[in-house]
Amino acid sequence: MCEANVYLVREGREELLMEAVDVMEPRGDKLYLRNIFGEQREVAARLKTTSLLQHKILLEPLSEGEET
Amino acid sequence: MCEANVYLVREGREELLMEAVDVMEPRGDKLYLRNIFGEQREVAARLKTTSLLQHKILLEPLSEGEET
Repeated sequence: MCEANVYLVREGREELLMEAVDVMEPRGDKLYLRNIFGEQREVAARLKTTSLLQHKILLEPLSEGEET
Repeated sequence: MCEANVYLVREGREELLMEAVDVMEPRGDKLYLRNIFGEQREVAARLKTTSLLQHKILLEPLSEGEET
């Protein structure tokens, strides 16, 4: 099985958003995720990088309108 | 091995851009790809969708400035 775990990188820390993701798809400003269990969510984030060999996809939060 | 093949979808057809991709990372307007053989390229495209169970990542060309 070649799905990946999706993490949100916030302040240098990786927070697990969803395990075993099959589908990742931009929808407007959001990123739609669906995993092999049929769970779905949309997150206000964008792709940062992948390491598919490590089964990892890293996202970063949308920064527009956010304050540090 | 859980890498994916990256395709560019143009006019409904899938053109294989790179096999066995490990790393996919936005860099400015481009998308950087690196595969398990160490091949690298940057493409003027953005993520359209993934089906990691099928080892597929689909990209679409950047449309800005393009004419149909």
